[in-house]
Amino acid sequence: MVNTGEINGSSNLMDFLDEPFPDVGTYEDFHTIDWLREKSRDTDRHRKITSKSKESLWEFIKGLLDAWSGWVVMLFIGLLSGTLAGVIDLAVDWMTDLKEGICLNAFWYSHEQCCWTSSETTFEDRDKCPQWQKWSELMIDQSEGASAYILNYFLYSMWALLFAFLAVSLVRVFAPYACGSGIPEIKTILSGFIIRGYLGKWTLLVKTVTLVLVVSSGLSLGKEGPSVHVACCCGNLFSSLFSKYSRNEGKRREVLSAAAAVGVSVAFGAPIGGVLFSLEEVSYYFPLKTLWRSFFAALVAAFTLRSINPFGNSRLVLFYVEYHTPWYMAELFPFILLGVFGGLWGTLFIRCNIAWCRRRKTTKLGKYPVLEVIAVTAITALLAYPNPYTRRSTSELISELFNDCGALESSQLCDYINDPNMTRPVDDIPDRQAGPGVYTAMWQLALALIFKIIITIFTFGMKIPSGLFIPSIAVGAIAGRIVGVGVEQLAYHHHDWIIFRNWCRPGADCVTPGLYAMVGAAACLGGVTRMTVSLVVIMFELTGGLEYIVPLMAAAVTSKWVADAFGKEGIYEAHIHLNGYPFLDVKDEFTHRTLAMDVMRPRRGEPSLSVLTQDNMTVEDVETLIKDTDYNGFPVVVSRDSERLIGFAQRRELIIAIKNARQRQDGVVSNSIVYFTEDPPELPANSPHPLKLRRILNLSPFTVTDHTPMETVVDIFRKLGLRQCLVTRSGRLLGIITKKDVLRHMAQMANQDPESIMFN
Amino acid sequence: MVNTGEINGSSNLMDFLDEPFPDVGTYEDFHTIDWLREKSRDTDRHRKITSKSKESLWEFIKGLLDAWSGWVVMLFIGLLSGTLAGVIDLAVDWMTDLKEGICLNAFWYSHEQCCWTSSETTFEDRDKCPQWQKWSELMIDQSEGASAYILNYFLYSMWALLFAFLAVSLVRVFAPYACGSGIPEIKTILSGFIIRGYLGKWTLLVKTVTLVLVVSSGLSLGKEGPSVHVACCCGNLFSSLFSKYSRNEGKRREVLSAAAAVGVSVAFGAPIGGVLFSLEEVSYYFPLKTLWRSFFAALVAAFTLRSINPFGNSRLVLFYVEYHTPWYMAELFPFILLGVFGGLWGTLFIRCNIAWCRRRKTTKLGKYPVLEVIAVTAITALLAYPNPYTRRSTSELISELFNDCGALESSQLCDYINDPNMTRPVDDIPDRQAGPGVYTAMWQLALALIFKIIITIFTFGMKIPSGLFIPSIAVGAIAGRIVGVGVEQLAYHHHDWIIFRNWCRPGADCVTPGLYAMVGAAACLGGVTRMTVSLVVIMFELTGGLEYIVPLMAAAVTSKWVADAFGKEGIYEAHIHLNGYPFLDVKDEFTHRTLAMDVMRPRRGEPSLSVLTQDNMTVEDVETLIKDTDYNGFPVVVSRDSERLIGFAQRRELIIAIKNARQRQDGVVSNSIVYFTEDPPELPANSPHPLKLRRILNLSPFTVTDHTPMETVVDIFRKLGLRQCLVTRSGRLLGIITKKDVLRHMAQMANQDPESIMFN
Repeated sequence: MVNTGEINGSSNLMDFLDEPFPDVGTYEDFHTIDWLREKSRDTDRHRKITSKSKESLWEFIKGLLDAWSGWVVMLFIGLLSGTLAGVIDLAVDWMTDLKEGICLNAFWYSHEQCCWTSSETTFEDRDKCPQWQKWSELMIDQSEGASAYILNYFLYSMWALLFAFLAVSLVRVFAPYACGSGIPEIKTILSGFIIRGYLGKWTLLVKTVTLVLVVSSGLSLGKEGPSVHVACCCGNLFSSLFSKYSRNEGKRREVLSAAAAVGVSVAFGAPIGGVLFSLEEVSYYFPLKTLWRSFFAALVAAFTLRSINPFGNSRLVLFYVEYHTPWYMAELFPFILLGVFGGLWGTLFIRCNIAWCRRRKTTKLGKYPVLEVIAVTAITALLAYPNPYTRRSTSELISELFNDCGALESSQLCDYINDPNMTRPVDDIPDRQAGPGVYTAMWQLALALIFKIIITIFTFGMKIPSGLFIPSIAVGAIAGRIVGVGVEQLAYHHHDWIIFRNWCRPGADCVTPGLYAMVGAAACLGGVTRMTVSLVVIMFELTGGLEYIVPLMAAAVTSKWVADAFGKEGIYEAHIHLNGYPFLDVKDEFTHRTLAMDVMRPRRGEPSLSVLTQDNMTVEDVETLIKDTDYNGFPVVVSRDSERLIGFAQRRELIIAIKNARQRQDGVVSNSIVYFTEDPPELPANSPHPLKLRRILNLSPFTVTDHTPMETVVDIFRKLGLRQCLVTRSGRLLGIITKKDVLRHMAQMANQDPESIMFN
Repeated sequence: MVNTGEINGSSNLMDFLDEPFPDVGTYEDFHTIDWLREKSRDTDRHRKITSKSKESLWEFIKGLLDAWSGWVVMLFIGLLSGTLAGVIDLAVDWMTDLKEGICLNAFWYSHEQCCWTSSETTFEDRDKCPQWQKWSELMIDQSEGASAYILNYFLYSMWALLFAFLAVSLVRVFAPYACGSGIPEIKTILSGFIIRGYLGKWTLLVKTVTLVLVVSSGLSLGKEGPSVHVACCCGNLFSSLFSKYSRNEGKRREVLSAAAAVGVSVAFGAPIGGVLFSLEEVSYYFPLKTLWRSFFAALVAAFTLRSINPFGNSRLVLFYVEYHTPWYMAELFPFILLGVFGGLWGTLFIRCNIAWCRRRKTTKLGKYPVLEVIAVTAITALLAYPNPYTRRSTSELISELFNDCGALESSQLCDYINDPNMTRPVDDIPDRQAGPGVYTAMWQLALALIFKIIITIFTFGMKIPSGLFIPSIAVGAIAGRIVGVGVEQLAYHHHDWIIFRNWCRPGADCVTPGLYAMVGAAACLGGVTRMTVSLVVIMFELTGGLEYIVPLMAAAVTSKWVADAFGKEGIYEAHIHLNGYPFLDVKDEFTHRTLAMDVMRPRRGEPSLSVLTQDNMTVEDVETLIKDTDYNGFPVVVSRDSERLIGFAQRRELIIAIKNARQRQDGVVSNSIVYFTEDPPELPANSPHPLKLRRILNLSPFTVTDHTPMETVVDIFRKLGLRQCLVTRSGRLLGIITKKDVLRHMAQMANQDPESIMFN
């Protein structure tokens, strides 16, 4: 298709389209990309580089660099995300402790770091090292008593309010996109939507800073979702350094998919789980090449984080646990109960949270985001402080709940009564009759559970960065631990019952309550997010043993089934729908019997489709058509009578082409004829210069017949990532189906509000 | 589109197509399935069940059972595959030991089982327990000496020959499809090809039995590939029990993908790795629902295998290892060297093996498969016996090479010289100066390496079940161990060099040679199969620690890059090409600039496309067309003049429809008109009864324009799983592109022999 530009005698004029004009091939904000086109643009690029690289050594090296740029981007993303995650962890540690006191030696030390150099030997004493001063000790020189308690309470709340206020103000003023978990938007972006600035540098900076602030403020939220957003911002940042990715929205999304994996990898220290999370939950188009690169990036990030060592334990994972007791078949019953609980919690949370968010969107409430954050923070701080399990950071709480009671454990949860009459080896674990500490802990945990369940519903969705993983895990871990201790005491007190007969041996654990906490956590997380494989793999990476994969899987499966019975949508899909993003879920199955002709526009009774003809419209006609309609593009047909389709012209490219032609090409005026044909006919000498637009014509528009089942059409849209598809019958153009039409139709079929889809 | 059958006055005749005739919707052997059609058939089925389930309780329960059948199938596959894998392991153990001797107490015990009850305490003595008798001890009452050696040597070879002869005879006589690894064929089947009997019960039985025989015979092959085949046979077996899967080739392939994961899961005890292997290496269409189910099946299988406990160590994994020494950054250099070695070995192996297999196919050699197996077995047995590292089973060899030298290790490889002058704690590991045993071992390993490399090339591809994983791992492990010991001795003797300064501390290991073996194994396996993520994950599951993932990854990446530099194809793809299977690889990128019009038939100069017209061909015309051509189907156009496409009719369905009509429908004769239109016109009273075939017409055939880039066409064929695609220009039918045309074109572009594709 070489256009020599010498047809029609105007050999002095180059076809102006030989020079590409600047904006062709980019997309407008809030528009959908055309995956097929992006892919073929990348292949063109690749072909050009390959053919050039044979010309000279320099081009060859450039070609090599280009081939390697994917790996370089991954390396950078891994390094930066890992570093950021480490910095966030350290900062959160320090600021969380700042709410309770300060290190006198060096104010930038957290409580734990402050007491590392302390000479005390037991864990309990070390927590009370003299360098670390509570606010009451520092200010009124009292560590106990009512006034000290009130002062600490007051300062704890003040710090929390300060952090939250700073966070919400930063988000409001500098980067509104930094709020929320970011995963719904990232899913939408990865499916091919353009949201400019959502992954920008500014968002990256503000989200990182505010994330530290909100987590430190003690609100019931986590950093896992936002850390996926932060990693994706890093991915966007680095992909803009290489033209391969910055100029191609399709390729850029490959990098972003990998970045999502990195986000989870650093959040949990679970690289394999991260990659599977990206594959299962976030990504839309995930070629195998991306799988391998994601894995590389996730590993780099995990090791960068480990070398920063924010948890001070040389471990990759956030909650490292090791259990020693095997589990028994009969324990599957409580595990499945936890699964049911997780499913119910997931349903409850999604329903209430969506209802609350919808209320926020539609009523006056949404107008006072700062006030809302302040109010929720105040309530959280006031209710959280009195209960030791909610006062500390959620991660610490989860850590303690997951842990098995070892010999060195000083937690209240491990306050078991040791029977002095029983002889046992020195380093043995105490007997498992619950002492008063355990009973107190149970009450406090029950209160903490109710508190967490309610406050999380109101927290998620405010104008601050907020992740869901940690609160969900906390809810599940609390419920699990309570059930675990219950089963343990039952087994201990009734060890003669037939099912418990083998469980308890003198001096050894009957059951592992920590395992119940972990199973509960998996169940609740699964209920909210509907993750399956990635969930189990993340949990597997935390424990590092295949032994416990069956309990985790049983709970995850139960939880998903229970939650799915009440509604198919996970929290991310629910938020996507709430916000009306044009997201065509790969997981939804379309099973209705409609045909393409039922969905295409124009419908019966509507005016006929706006089309261009190949050789008898003037520039003015085209301009009028563009002005009168707001379609993204127009089919080009042989003539209005035959309606035989020859191609498709993008609105944006038409506008640019006509503008350029008017400015630069001699003789193109309003009544010039627009030709989409290959060889425009010889025109009379005095007629205006024609405008040849064949080169902006897409000669291979996607077509289906009017009898194609919508099921197939949906499949085609999903798998090929189309923007629109033309409908024909016996070779005649009948209508058009856009992605918006498909989404609307699907929503109609599912009885949802079809008008809520924001989309062009 | 309700066809009332009352048009044209013939109300007494039901339209015979209201009753579906038996064979419609199935495929012939060696044909490709139509994924889109299978999918829409499944949706129809689903819709029917859903609407029926509202009618009565019984239908509701049937609906529920149908929804659960996927999980039930997975459960069964897991249980049966796990059991089979356990039985195979036990049988192989016993028969491998049978080559050397027999247990006097109970002949069905293997050497290890025989000596379990022995009272000897050390490992070495236990190996020589009195119940276990070598053949020479039993027959000539000598355990040492030349005659005993010769007798044992002779019997070892005889048993090996017997086993191999039995195996090849069974395969030849009962199930020719049981030979080879099966993975290339399974990849092809999963991509939508039909090979009847390849996954049949007979193949399952024969493959299981012969697999035991060939592995026991000591040939250089493994059971991993064949165990994937066995698991897929189980999958096929169980899917034929449920109409949901047995009647739908698309759904059946979902089950088979999961079964492939199960195969690897039981082969290595690595469920996550198995699922990723299926995803990365084997599967074609892998929806997320399948991912979750595969994982479930893989876990069930792994736990079934564990409860059979064939390795006697309560471990899931085949080669369980635990290392204690960390690795140092500088060790990455030898690791990368091992990666290079792995890549080179992969290239060498693929080239030589393919050349040899091609020779076998094209020369007389292929006519004597039994003789070939006997000859190779004889050579293997004769050369393997003298070397202790090749005499034993390959799995045992790998196990020993992977293992770190602990205090209890009696292997020659751990024959280090202990320095008596050094004080050290009691349970310490000996110093790492190599003793004479280590040097002998090195020589023997070097010989074993050369032997394995050469013999494997000739073994893989013979008419017996043969897997590649174990030989590849063995080659890598030997090379790795040699390098590891070398580095260790270098570090030990030059511990004052700057890079080694921190490595060796008195009384502790300098490096872990077992880790080198594992890294080498990953590199060699990666070089041959080009697995990436699944490879690293399988190895990660074997070691169970994220610590060693970086060395493994470095080696795997290097090996893949080195091997890819010499040729993009892994061994499975190479065998697919060698056999000419119509496999459209998802991983191949098509980057040429050709258009649909360059590929479609008819080419310029060829006779025009065979088409049907919608309303003016007689039954005889159609029958002539069917007889004269061998196309799979025919486009139906409005008329030969306008060539406007209205649909596509399958050859098979046309034949069946005409046959049925002639037999059962009054008045349909040779000069009846065939109508594909919705309403056939009123015919004169005396004209023959028309044949209405609209219901077999596919009204939504897939079309592209002649200007569509082939890149897009390839993408469409891959992603939608098409069989053919029609080419139009401006609404007129121009030609047709079949999957075969696409594959031929791709082969032409890659300069391969395009005529080798066996395919209709």
